[in-house]
Formats: sequence, structure tokens, C-alpha cells
Amino acid sequence: MKRILLLGAGRSASSLIQYLLDNAAAEDWHLRIGDISVAHLQPLVESVASADIMVFDVHNERQRAEEVGQADLVISMLPAAFHIAVARECLKQGRHMITASYVTLAFRELHEAAQQENLVILMESGLDPGIDHMSAMAVIQRIQAAGGTVTAFKSYTGGLVAPESDTNPWRYKFTWNPRNVVLAGQGTAKYIQHGSYKYIPYHQLFRRADALHIAGYGGFEGYANRDSLSYRELYGLGDIPTMLRGTLRRQGYCAAWDALVQLGLTDDSYTLEGSERMTHRSFLDAFLPPAASAEQTLAVRISSYINIPADGEVMEKLAWLGLFEETPVGLKEATPAQVLEKILKAKWTLAPGDKDMVVMQHLFEYELSGRRHEISSTLVATGDDEVHTAMAKTVGLPVGMLARLLLQGKIERRGVIIPVYPELYAPVLEELKRYGIDFVEKERVLSE
Amino acid sequence: MKRILLLGAGRSASSLIQYLLDNAAAEDWHLRIGDISVAHLQPLVESVASADIMVFDVHNERQRAEEVGQADLVISMLPAAFHIAVARECLKQGRHMITASYVTLAFRELHEAAQQENLVILMESGLDPGIDHMSAMAVIQRIQAAGGTVTAFKSYTGGLVAPESDTNPWRYKFTWNPRNVVLAGQGTAKYIQHGSYKYIPYHQLFRRADALHIAGYGGFEGYANRDSLSYRELYGLGDIPTMLRGTLRRQGYCAAWDALVQLGLTDDSYTLEGSERMTHRSFLDAFLPPAASAEQTLAVRISSYINIPADGEVMEKLAWLGLFEETPVGLKEATPAQVLEKILKAKWTLAPGDKDMVVMQHLFEYELSGRRHEISSTLVATGDDEVHTAMAKTVGLPVGMLARLLLQGKIERRGVIIPVYPELYAPVLEELKRYGIDFVEKERVLSE
Repeated sequence: MKRILLLGAGRSASSLIQYLLDNAAAEDWHLRIGDISVAHLQPLVESVASADIMVFDVHNERQRAEEVGQADLVISMLPAAFHIAVARECLKQGRHMITASYVTLAFRELHEAAQQENLVILMESGLDPGIDHMSAMAVIQRIQAAGGTVTAFKSYTGGLVAPESDTNPWRYKFTWNPRNVVLAGQGTAKYIQHGSYKYIPYHQLFRRADALHIAGYGGFEGYANRDSLSYRELYGLGDIPTMLRGTLRRQGYCAAWDALVQLGLTDDSYTLEGSERMTHRSFLDAFLPPAASAEQTLAVRISSYINIPADGEVMEKLAWLGLFEETPVGLKEATPAQVLEKILKAKWTLAPGDKDMVVMQHLFEYELSGRRHEISSTLVATGDDEVHTAMAKTVGLPVGMLARLLLQGKIERRGVIIPVYPELYAPVLEELKRYGIDFVEKERVLSE
Repeated sequence: MKRILLLGAGRSASSLIQYLLDNAAAEDWHLRIGDISVAHLQPLVESVASADIMVFDVHNERQRAEEVGQADLVISMLPAAFHIAVARECLKQGRHMITASYVTLAFRELHEAAQQENLVILMESGLDPGIDHMSAMAVIQRIQAAGGTVTAFKSYTGGLVAPESDTNPWRYKFTWNPRNVVLAGQGTAKYIQHGSYKYIPYHQLFRRADALHIAGYGGFEGYANRDSLSYRELYGLGDIPTMLRGTLRRQGYCAAWDALVQLGLTDDSYTLEGSERMTHRSFLDAFLPPAASAEQTLAVRISSYINIPADGEVMEKLAWLGLFEETPVGLKEATPAQVLEKILKAKWTLAPGDKDMVVMQHLFEYELSGRRHEISSTLVATGDDEVHTAMAKTVGLPVGMLARLLLQGKIERRGVIIPVYPELYAPVLEELKRYGIDFVEKERVLSE
């Protein structure tokens, strides 16, 4: 029997837990789940003999050491900041580990030690990062194996709502950490296009979104992520002249979000004076130049300040958020971003029955035998219900599948690795299809 | 004989040194000047028996202690970061101190100790901060003494070029630290207007400049400084409904500077890839979306990106800077702001014979006996030559005058103080007039 220790059992772990439980008997696994709160897991594990739960405190070193010591594999779905302590314990006690989080500098420094101990610390194994790496590398390595040269790679991912739940003018609801959505894109986006480095400051980012179309789903927009450059090395495309990674939203979102950016409502760098006495309306007003006359409506003032139509779609989206209303903010010493997050949460929270949707689209250009080709590879994954959301499935299932490969002894690489190797991504991409997580590819020749 | 130790004798100290030397005989002072480089001071002091110079190393603790120990008063014109070590030495050895720099938190913490030691640490005694405090408080306290209530205070200061040297389309040259000019306004400007707090994000700051007119000098623009709020307490105007402090530029500057901000050229938060291989033109290009066609000129691309006319005054100013030219940047691992600073330095450096000009304008509104009044109080100071610039005079002379008051025993307050008290500002403002540093006041009744 192999013992799996899963640390962190929040919302995004639901599909991972189900996968591990479903496979436990056939694979001869024992699954032990630890979280700060475990009551919600009781119904799941009570019918499964080979699973148990425990209250786990990330700050309790002794408990961490004891639990890790009893496991063959540790899967950490804890908040990213807590992974490193778990990893160090795994290294000390010779246990493999998997996470869905980014390889940080602290993890990079564990690579050689992990190799020496004959251990795998397998990271970036969820959706983004995770499925993005796997699905991109599958195409890239296929092109390269055929003798082609990848000349451009653009990749966009978004956590959105499914068409049947796409019920508000923003065409967006929170399916992931709201704070990260509010702060998204702050800093400067860097990418490379036709061999030239390009820089997009935050206040231009949402104006420079790319239009994308996905057959059967309509129009989308992709704004550039902060870092597109480091992926060149990760994917072995050091010389690629065009590389861009971005975040997907529905058509119309970026122009409206840009209005919030232009006004300054997404700023998280200072606290507002007297935020506890503010209403949505006075919050908005604090960012506007004084009214030219008492008759000027808020919409007219916004319109002339940030140069958007006073009665257009963007203004309609702002009004729909309730920004013009005298609703109390109810937050003390809040930053603009915190106030905005609260306003958005009241509007963008998934309702019971709402389904989410994960969309990922890769666009490749490559040259082969003098011809330029284009491949699009597109994933649209829809949630089953409010527990097994598209986000939970696409983050959790690849982690579970990689865990299975690892425990079956099918992963021979050691050290701190990510799933960019065929022996990792090929079986996972294949197995994901059975869960409806499947990329649709289209290819065309661009020129002779 | 009183011994004055002056630490720091850079460009901005020229008029202060002259003032101290001119008064040395009559006041029975000995002046000792320390700087990392003193050769340029030799001609100044060689005809003055009661002055000498020495090479001073701010990092040499022993020298600092020895020099401070021999002085009655220490004036620090060192870079601001070095003041605090000098202040602690002054406190230890019971010496008074004057600087032109802001009271930082570290200095605030010395206040009670200085009081206990019967010492003065007199700060913010130059131009801005310095003359701004003095000239504003003179008006505010006069209004209050007459029974009036100040309801609005806006104050703008700028280091500019004199009309005879106003020879480029930006109507600006560097008369102060270029790096600070490039980074000016980053963060969020906060002020209060009609009782409401107002916030201006950096990317809107230069679009929201106020127009000002100064008789005999024409049009100016003032953009809000980051912090206008703390001055309410400093000036005893805790309840004032409108308070704004700003920086002055010539008409047309802000719209053109805004273009640089919109493009992202003032960003100092990251380094450019391969900046050593960039030209001015490729630097600019890195911030622009790709050309729609090979025929699109840079001006057309900028025009459609940041929404300015392709052949207007702003574009003319950008072109005049040489941004469109294939001139090598010649900087390694540079931030955008560093590249821009280098480009600007080649264009905005004062030429031999150029004269600078300091402009300060306060705008007060107050109520007295049911009437609303407005006072404008305006200073325009022009440099004598390239050594005794307006900046050097307005920063250095008040420091020298306050030093004289202090050594004459006319300052009785103790602790860390700034010149907001009549016994400090009244004689200084009076003496400054003799140097042509004089405020012109205009008053009118706004309503009955």
C-alpha cells in the first residue's frame, strides 16, 4: 500500500480528492487529508476504507514532520507560501512531493538536494501553471520532431463562466481568488514580438488586449501577463522571435476594466482617508475631478475625464456594479483595491447553480520545409456543478494523474521538475480527455 | 567668535557660502567648509581670514565627531540621507544644526532629546521646503490675526528657466536633480477639495494640471504633489476644506510629459532587455504596439496609441527630444527612466549663460466678516549667473539668514523645528527682499 498525504483541501481540491478516492482501491493507496477545517470532507471519506482526515495546522512543525514521515507521497494544495516548509520536510525524510504552484527561487535551490536524495518535487502541475505547459509542449515537441521551427507562440488562459451562467454585462464572475483578479496586471507586461522586446505599462494593458475567437463560444479578449519572457527557456524556445502569454476575458471586459484602472480604483498602494464613511458613490467621486457644474451627472464627469461615452457599454457596466449608488462601503482603512474587491464580490459571486468555464488557447506559428504554418490548440472545460467546477477539475485532475504516474514508478526524473517532458504530459493529456478536458487543434498553412 | 561648520558645498550651496562669508566679519564668525571635493572653494576663502576648507568624508565617523565638536553651529547641505548621522553627533556634543531638508521620521524622534539638551535642529529652511512655509505662514497668520478663516490654500513651486533662457519647445531645463524630475509624481497624489479627499493616479496626474497665470510671465501649469494633506497640520489648518500643493511648469509641458508617462518611458521599476544595444528610436518603439503596416510612421503610431495629434505640439516636443532618432542609448541594464533621463540631459542641460528662475505662487481664500476674499502671493526669482542661480539663492539664503538669527540668540524655540513661527519667518522674509526674493501680493473680494 502507498500512502498519500494531501495537505490543503479547499474548494480547488474537490476534484483532486475525488480522483484520488476513485483510484484508491485499484492503486492500493491510502489517502490521508489534512486541512485546518475538515468537517466538509467527512461524507466523502466515510465510505472509503482507505482514506482518513485530520485537522492540520501548517504552523505546527511537529505535526508536519510526523505526517510527512508516514507518507510515500505528499501533495500540497496549501496556499503557495506554505509549500516550501513542506518541501524541506519531504527532503529531510525522503518523500516525493507534488504541488500545482510555481517553482519559486526557494524551490529552485532545492533541486540538487532533491536529485541527490533521489526525490521528485513535481510542481506547476495544475491548470496554469500545469495543463498550459503540458498542452503547449505536446505541440511544440511534435513540431520540432517533424523538423519544424516554432516562430511564434501566444497562449491565453482564463477562468470564466459557462455560457448558461453568463448572465451579467461584464460576462465575468469570480471563479478564483478575487483579490488577484482586482490586482491583475499591475506592474509592466513584457513580451517579445518579431524579435523585439515589448513593454506595456499597467495603464495601457487593458487597452492593448488581443481579440480572439473560439468556434462555438464567440469573442474573447486576451491581455498580456506580466512575464512572457521566462517561458522561452522553460519550453526550450530560447530564440523564438514572438512569445506572449495572456489572460482571457469575454469581449468587452477589458475596455470596462480599463475604465476602473484609468480612474485609479485598482490601486492597492495606499489607504483611503475615512473609507469607513464612504459609499460606493463617494468612493468613485474621490477619483474624479470636481464637477464643472452642480448639474453634471457622475456619468458625464466620468465620460469627460476618461474619454468614454456617457451612455455606452462601458458606462453601463460601471453602473451595473453599483458604483453610482449610495451603498455604504463598510471597510476601515481600506485601499481602493480592497473597496473595489468588496463592490465586485457583491456582484460577481457565483450564484447557486452557476457553472464556470476554463478556456485556454495556444496559437503557434512554425516553419517547415519553407512553409509557414499556424496551429491553434483550444481547450474549453465546463464545470459539472458548484463543487466540481471547471477550475477544480483542471487544477486538481492533472495533479492526481501525475501522482498516480509517480507512485506507479513511471517518473524517473529527479529533482524539482515541471511537467514539460513527454513521459509526464503525454499520459496526463490522454487521461484528461476522459474527463472532457480535451484540446481541439486546427492547422492551416499561412504561406508557401 | 562663533564657529560655523558647513558640511556639503555642492552647486546649491554657492549662495549660502557667499552669504556666510559676506557676514563673517560683522558677525564675528569663523566658517569651516567640508566637502568631498573642495578645490573649487579655494578662490572663495583665500581672501577671507575667518574661513577655511577641508576634505570631508561623510563616512568617517571620527572626522565627523571631531569637526562637529569644534563648531557652535553645524549646517548640513549634504545629500538628505546623510543628515541624520550629523544630527545625532550634534545632539551628542550639544551643537545646533540647520538643514534645508524635510523632517523625516528619524528626525522627529530626536525632537524631545534636542529639547532636553537645549538644542535647535532647524530644518526645511531652504526654498521648498523653506520659503514656502515662511511665505505661506506670513499670510495665514495675518489673516487669522485679523479674525479671518482660511478656507482654501493652493501652493505651487517650480524651478524653471528665466524668460531669456526659455529657448526650447518644452520651456524647461534641468535646474535641479534630473532623476527627481523624471520620477516626479509617481505614486498617487492626494489632496482635499471642498472637504472631499481627492486621489489622482500617476497616469492622470499630468492631465489634471491647473492653469495659472503670472502677470508679466504668462501661462504656467501646476500638477499636484504626492502629499498635500500633511501640510494642514503643519500650518495649523487642520479643518481647511481645500488644500493642494503642486509643482509648476510652463504651459504645454504637462501635456507633453503626459505622453512620456502614457508610453511608459518614466518607469523605474524594471530594467530593459539589451538596453546597451538600443537607440532612442528602438527604445521608443519598445513601448508602442506593432505597426499596422510598414508605411506607418512612428508619429502616426504614437498618435493612434496615446491619442495625440500626429503633427501637434506634443509630437513636436517628443521629436525635439531626439526620441525618433537612431542615437545609441549607451546604457547597460538601464530602466526606462534612466534611459529617458539620459536623453533629456542631452537636451535640457543649462547652457553657459543660461539663467534659471524660481516661481512660487500661493493662492488663499478666506472668509472675514461674511465676505470671501482671495489673496495671491507670488515670487519670481531669477538667477544672477550660472553659480548664483535662483535655485542656489532661494535654497541657500534663508538657511544663512536663519543661521544668523540662531547665532545671534534670536531663536528661543528648541527641538526639531521648521520655520513656521513669526520670529523665524518675519526677519528672513524681510531680509530676502534685499536679494530680490520678494512676494507680490494681490487681494480681491470674491463675494459679499
